[in-house]
Amino acid sequence: MSDAIAHKLLDGRGIAAQMRETIATDVEKLKDGGWAPKLVSICVGDEDAAHIYVRNQRRAAEKVGMAFEPRTYPADIGAEELLGIVHGLNVDPRITGVIIQRPMPDHIQVRDIQRAVHPLKDLEGMHPSNIGDIVYNDLRMGPCTAVAAVEMLKQTPLQLEGLEVTVIGHSAIVGKPIAFLLMAEGATVNVCHHMTRNVAVHSRQADAVFVAVGKAGLVTGDMIKPGAAVIDIGINQIDTPDGPKVVGDADFDSCAEVAGWITPVPGGVGPVTVATLLRNAVTAARLQQEHYEMAFSEEKPQASR
Amino acid sequence: MSDAIAHKLLDGRGIAAQMRETIATDVEKLKDGGWAPKLVSICVGDEDAAHIYVRNQRRAAEKVGMAFEPRTYPADIGAEELLGIVHGLNVDPRITGVIIQRPMPDHIQVRDIQRAVHPLKDLEGMHPSNIGDIVYNDLRMGPCTAVAAVEMLKQTPLQLEGLEVTVIGHSAIVGKPIAFLLMAEGATVNVCHHMTRNVAVHSRQADAVFVAVGKAGLVTGDMIKPGAAVIDIGINQIDTPDGPKVVGDADFDSCAEVAGWITPVPGGVGPVTVATLLRNAVTAARLQQEHYEMAFSEEKPQASR
Repeated sequence: MSDAIAHKLLDGRGIAAQMRETIATDVEKLKDGGWAPKLVSICVGDEDAAHIYVRNQRRAAEKVGMAFEPRTYPADIGAEELLGIVHGLNVDPRITGVIIQRPMPDHIQVRDIQRAVHPLKDLEGMHPSNIGDIVYNDLRMGPCTAVAAVEMLKQTPLQLEGLEVTVIGHSAIVGKPIAFLLMAEGATVNVCHHMTRNVAVHSRQADAVFVAVGKAGLVTGDMIKPGAAVIDIGINQIDTPDGPKVVGDADFDSCAEVAGWITPVPGGVGPVTVATLLRNAVTAARLQQEHYEMAFSEEKPQASR
Repeated sequence: MSDAIAHKLLDGRGIAAQMRETIATDVEKLKDGGWAPKLVSICVGDEDAAHIYVRNQRRAAEKVGMAFEPRTYPADIGAEELLGIVHGLNVDPRITGVIIQRPMPDHIQVRDIQRAVHPLKDLEGMHPSNIGDIVYNDLRMGPCTAVAAVEMLKQTPLQLEGLEVTVIGHSAIVGKPIAFLLMAEGATVNVCHHMTRNVAVHSRQADAVFVAVGKAGLVTGDMIKPGAAVIDIGINQIDTPDGPKVVGDADFDSCAEVAGWITPVPGGVGPVTVATLLRNAVTAARLQQEHYEMAFSEEKPQASR
């Protein structure tokens, strides 16, 4: 990689390491007060698919001094039983939060399991009421990947207020939350997807392009305005003559040529996503503490959260 | 008004009347099953500000055979007491839904009261978990104004899939939900607001423009692509030589000249918003019935909602 291009890279590993420093200090404080964070990861059936995610989460948790308990249940577990387990974790004071690993077997509706996790224990920020809170500009516990992607943009000197941004991909947990997180910061946001007539018309106007579709090579350099930021959320495994390789949704070489900043894959949004999960765990522990103290102090508990 | 322009009008009153016909039939069926819908409207303090809204809602409810109970509480009622009232309505089987009228006195946090209404009784579709459900493309109980605005666009022959739309205004209960409702239908959506560098650049590219800012004359004909649809959600009272007058956010005359379709104010999105509230009441009654039947039948209740 040329120096000119290396200079444009947004280094996710370095950003994540910085975030973990702050988180580690927060964890110490929480421990001192009796609120040591503990995460439970739930896999069902085939562990291999989620293996890398679980391993990365566990290692990152250990680095900041958080307990991490990976659980795997058999592929034929019933949805009712799984819901019962989640409810048990919701009322267990030792558990700060729950991570539902995907994929799940077909007989389990992932969304039903995710929404069974109490919003205050929903570290992934996927519960509808947590998603709804973001729409209301309450950004405390957002979906990790979306928050991490926006964090990458914040590492550039670009001012988010008034920034023209195109988001490619409109999923409920990545594309749309990126759009409202950016709106909350004052950006003008365009959301494109597979039904958009001409994505390039929009991406070429943008000061920053986010892509979260899951299609290698979808965004090429000719779709990017010179000097724009490219934030690549895709993670795709492709075959090359040198064997399998992990790449993003942007064609790195042509985009890096034109862009002002670009996230590599791997080593871009991914590590920051894991750090964001840990930061959500700190936030969750604090909100649970606040909730507990309200309930057990003379003050009346608040109506919300 | 010239015939050419009258021909472009999207007639909210006519659309609302059609919606009420279907709703009236639904209300009959609900009554037959023991689920007669009943709405409670809550005003605090100054009734005058919300007077027109309450009156329109009451009249519309009566037209479809729904019971409507307007309540007004004194301006100095405490937030705790008001929350207690809302909780009482949540557990009252005779009440289908609650409408929190605005404005509220300064010592009451409207959002806290709104989110105290149970999501299944939240007819206005403003509870964070109902807003979050829309993000997940579960469009059953959306925020009335946003749903009504999109309903207006659906009255045109424009195909929403792939349509280029600009939404001006990014409030949590109007602008943003319009954006995701449109995304769910396959539109490519751009959201502009007061921090956008140049709104006209975006609005001139759009096949449909939604405006929900609350500023008379904000959108003028030169900002609209010829033949585009203009959906005006603003309601502003202005002074004219002939006395006060209610207008939208679009400069009607110049926009109507250029647009292919346009909503008048009054008589556009407003009446459809009220009809949408009633349709949400039917949906709420059905969801409550479903929930009750699940709980009291042999089947286990679902995890969600």
